[in-house]
Amino acid sequence: MKRYEAYAAQIAEMIATGALKPGDRIPTVRDAGRQQGISPATVFRAYYLLESRGLIVARPRSGYYVSALPERVPPPVVSQPLQQSTAVEKADLIYEVLGAAKQPQIVPLGSAFPSVRLFPLDKLARSVSRGMRAFDPGRVVADLSPGNAELRRLIALRYRIDGLRVSADEIVVTDGAMEALNLCLLAVTKPGDAVILESPTFYGALQALERLHLRAIEIPTDPLSGIDLQALATVLRRQRPAACWLMPSFQNPLGSLMPESRKAELVQLLAEHEVPLIEDDVYGDLYYAAQRPRPAKAFDQQGLVLHCSSFSKSLAPGYRIGWVAPGRYVRQLQRLKLGTTLSAAMPSQVALADYLSGSGFDPHLRRLRERLAEQRDAMAAAVAEFFPKGTRATRPEGGYFMWLELPRNIDTLSLHRQALRKGISIAPGALFSARNDFAHCLRLNYGHPDDRRVNRALRTLGQLAAALQR
Amino acid sequence: MKRYEAYAAQIAEMIATGALKPGDRIPTVRDAGRQQGISPATVFRAYYLLESRGLIVARPRSGYYVSALPERVPPPVVSQPLQQSTAVEKADLIYEVLGAAKQPQIVPLGSAFPSVRLFPLDKLARSVSRGMRAFDPGRVVADLSPGNAELRRLIALRYRIDGLRVSADEIVVTDGAMEALNLCLLAVTKPGDAVILESPTFYGALQALERLHLRAIEIPTDPLSGIDLQALATVLRRQRPAACWLMPSFQNPLGSLMPESRKAELVQLLAEHEVPLIEDDVYGDLYYAAQRPRPAKAFDQQGLVLHCSSFSKSLAPGYRIGWVAPGRYVRQLQRLKLGTTLSAAMPSQVALADYLSGSGFDPHLRRLRERLAEQRDAMAAAVAEFFPKGTRATRPEGGYFMWLELPRNIDTLSLHRQALRKGISIAPGALFSARNDFAHCLRLNYGHPDDRRVNRALRTLGQLAAALQR
Repeated sequence: MKRYEAYAAQIAEMIATGALKPGDRIPTVRDAGRQQGISPATVFRAYYLLESRGLIVARPRSGYYVSALPERVPPPVVSQPLQQSTAVEKADLIYEVLGAAKQPQIVPLGSAFPSVRLFPLDKLARSVSRGMRAFDPGRVVADLSPGNAELRRLIALRYRIDGLRVSADEIVVTDGAMEALNLCLLAVTKPGDAVILESPTFYGALQALERLHLRAIEIPTDPLSGIDLQALATVLRRQRPAACWLMPSFQNPLGSLMPESRKAELVQLLAEHEVPLIEDDVYGDLYYAAQRPRPAKAFDQQGLVLHCSSFSKSLAPGYRIGWVAPGRYVRQLQRLKLGTTLSAAMPSQVALADYLSGSGFDPHLRRLRERLAEQRDAMAAAVAEFFPKGTRATRPEGGYFMWLELPRNIDTLSLHRQALRKGISIAPGALFSARNDFAHCLRLNYGHPDDRRVNRALRTLGQLAAALQR
Repeated sequence: MKRYEAYAAQIAEMIATGALKPGDRIPTVRDAGRQQGISPATVFRAYYLLESRGLIVARPRSGYYVSALPERVPPPVVSQPLQQSTAVEKADLIYEVLGAAKQPQIVPLGSAFPSVRLFPLDKLARSVSRGMRAFDPGRVVADLSPGNAELRRLIALRYRIDGLRVSADEIVVTDGAMEALNLCLLAVTKPGDAVILESPTFYGALQALERLHLRAIEIPTDPLSGIDLQALATVLRRQRPAACWLMPSFQNPLGSLMPESRKAELVQLLAEHEVPLIEDDVYGDLYYAAQRPRPAKAFDQQGLVLHCSSFSKSLAPGYRIGWVAPGRYVRQLQRLKLGTTLSAAMPSQVALADYLSGSGFDPHLRRLRERLAEQRDAMAAAVAEFFPKGTRATRPEGGYFMWLELPRNIDTLSLHRQALRKGISIAPGALFSARNDFAHCLRLNYGHPDDRRVNRALRTLGQLAAALQR
C-alpha cells in the first residue's frame, strides 16, 4: 500500500467507526502533512481518492468535509455490461425521448444543458461586437481550418497553465465538442470497427457510432472512479477495438472522476495495444475541488490521446466552439474539419478570442463551480428526501449530472412518460447503453438554479417512482 | 421542334452566318415577341437556351448580346468518364494541392472563395451586434436544431419570392452547404453505396464520398448545359445508385447551367427510380441573366430533392451558415444535425436574421452579380489573349469559376507546381474526378477583382502552359 493509500485508509476507517461524522471537517492539507509527516502532495492524493469514493467532499475555499448522508443514498453499483461488441440502434429512442422534452415550459431535469443564466452572455455579446470591429476580413480564408490563430494561442495558453504542453499548432477548432468526437472517430475508425465505451455512456457517443456503422464494446464503470481497468485490459487482449471513447473527468451521465493514477494507467494500457483514446473533457473545468483534475492527455507519451473539449459547458453555450488536440492525428483532424464543415464560425471565434484575452474567465468559472456545487447539494438532499427507499445516487465532484439507480422494478422509460405529462423531463437510463441496460436508472441535471419549481419537480418524480414500484 | 427551339435556331443561324456579330444586341423580349408573334415566355426560353450554349450573354438591365469571341475560345468538349462505380481515393492529392495554395501572398486563381472585398462585412458586423443585443438568451436551447426560427422564416420567404413552396419547418440550418452535403449523404446512403456525380465534379463531393466509404459514378456532363440525361438514364437502369449529388446551376468547376426543362426532366427521371437528388445550389443567386434560374427543387413532386444552399458565396463568408430543405428526409436531417454538430453558431444565425430582415441583401446581390459578370469578361479576354491555341474555356452565366481545357499534352498538375513557384495558384483538373480524368484541364477563379496582378498572373500562366506544350 502506498503512502497516500495508507493515509486515505486511515481516514476512511475513522468515518466508518464514526470517529468522523457526516459534515465534520477533516484535517487541512497543511495540518495533516505536519501531523503525519507526509508531503502536501501525498495528502492531496489521499483526499482525491476519498473524494472519488464519495467519502469526503471539497467545499471551495473552505476545505474537505465528510460527505453528508452516506448511508441514506449510497452510490450506484458498478455496471456489468455484456462485454461483446454490439451494433448500435438507439437513434430512434434517443431522438424520441429528447425531442419530447424540448418544450420551453418543461422543468428540464433531463436536459443536457445547464441554465443559460449561469453564463456571462452580456459580456460575450460585447466581445462579439469588439472582436468583429477589430477583425481583419482578409483573414477569413487564412483562419479557415484549423481555426483563428489568436483563439488557438489562447487555448494553448490555458493548457500550459494547467501544466500540459499542447501547442497552438496541434489545436483544431471545431463546432463544439460533439463535432470533435465525430471527427476523431472518422480519423481512427472505419465502418464495422468496434469502439470501447464506458457503461453507462453518453448517448451522443452511441449516436455517433450508429451513424458511422461502428460497434460498441461497453466496459464496467464505477460510478465514483470510472472505467474498470482490469475489464478493459481483458477486452484489449481478446478483441481488437479501433478506439476508446471516454470521459475520464465527470463522466456523463455518472459524474465519475478517474483518479490521476488510474488515468495514467489507462493511457499506458491503451498505448501497449496502440489503441487511440478519444478523451472527452468538456466537464473538466467544472470541478468543485481545489484543483482542476488533470486529463488523461497529461500522461500521454505516444500522441495517442485525442483530447476534446469546448466552451459550451463552461462559458458560451450556443457559440458552438470546441476543439481537439489530437496528438499524432493532427493532420487527419485538420483535413477532416476542412472537408466536413470547413471551419468554425468566425464571429464566434473572434468573440471567444476577445473574451479569453481579458481576465473574466477564471472568476466566472469560480462562481459557476460554486453554484453547481450548491445545486448538487440541494438536489442530493431532495433525492434523499423524496425518492423511494433503495434509491442509489452519485454525488459528483464536478459537472452537473447526477445518476440515480432506482429499485429494480421501476422502469424509467415509464417514469419519463409520466413525468412529461406533469411537465418534467428526465433522461431515462435506456438512453445510455447500446443494449437495454439501466432500465431502472436515470440522469438528472442540476445545472438549473435550485428553486421551488425544481424542488417540486423532484418531489413529483419521487412520488411517481414510488407509485411505479408497486 | 418546339416554338422556342425554332426561334433559338433562327438566332443561332444569324450568328453563324455573321448576320449578328459578337457584341451585337439581339432583339428585346418585347420586340421579338411582337415580331415573331410568340409569347415573352417563349422568347425567354429561347434566350436561355442560346445562353446555355454560350452564343449570347445577358447584361443586367441592358439586354442580350451576341457573345464575344465565340470562335477564339470555344467551350470544352463533353466529358467521357468511364461510367462505372469507383472507390474514391483523392484526399491526399486534394489536400496537398489546396494546402500548398494557402499562403496569403499568392494570386488565388485556384481558390474556392471569391474576394472578401465583394461582401458587406461592415454591415454584417453591425448586424451581429444588433442581433446579439436583441437576442433572448433563453432561446439558445430552443434554437438548437433545426435552427433560429426567425432565420428559417426569412429563408423560407426567399424561397417563396423565387416561386418555391418551402416552409420554415422544412429548413434545417447547417454550418455551411458543405455540412449540408455531408448530412444529406449520411441520410440517404450507407457505406459501399454508389453516388452519381457530374464529370468533372466538385472535389468536396469526392472527399465526402471517400470519408463515408461511398463509391462514385461519374456521368458525362456538358460544360454548357450540365449532366447528360441519356447517360444518366442508362446508369439508373443498370446500376443501383443510392443518391445523385449535382449542381444544376453554375456547376463547380464547369459553371454549366441546366436549362429548366432539363432540370424538370432530371427530377422526373430520378423519381422514376426513387433516387434522391442532393442539389447543391450555392451559386444559384450569382446568375448574370435577368432572372434567378429555378432549382431542380422547383420541379419536385415527391419530396426526393434535398436542396442545399448557403450564404457563404453570396453574402457572409466565414459566418458558416448554410441550410438544407430536405423534402421527405426532413426528420432524418434534423436528427443528423442534432447528433453531429448540434446547431449552427448562434451569433452567426442572429446576425443573418438581422441582416435579412433589412432591405440590403438584394441590392448587394445585384452589385455582386454585376462585378462577377465584368470579371468573367475580363478573364475570358485574358484567356483568349494569353493561352495557347487549342485552349477551350467555359463562359459561365453565373458563379465565379471558369473551366479551361488545354491542348491534351499539357499536364495541369505540372502547371500547378510551376505556377506556385511564381506565386500563382490554380485548381488542376485532376482534383475534379475520382479517376484521373481532366489531366489537361484546370479551374480558374474570377471572383477576385480584375487588376494588373490578376492580369499579369494570367499572362504568366499562359506562358507556362505554352512552355509545357513543347
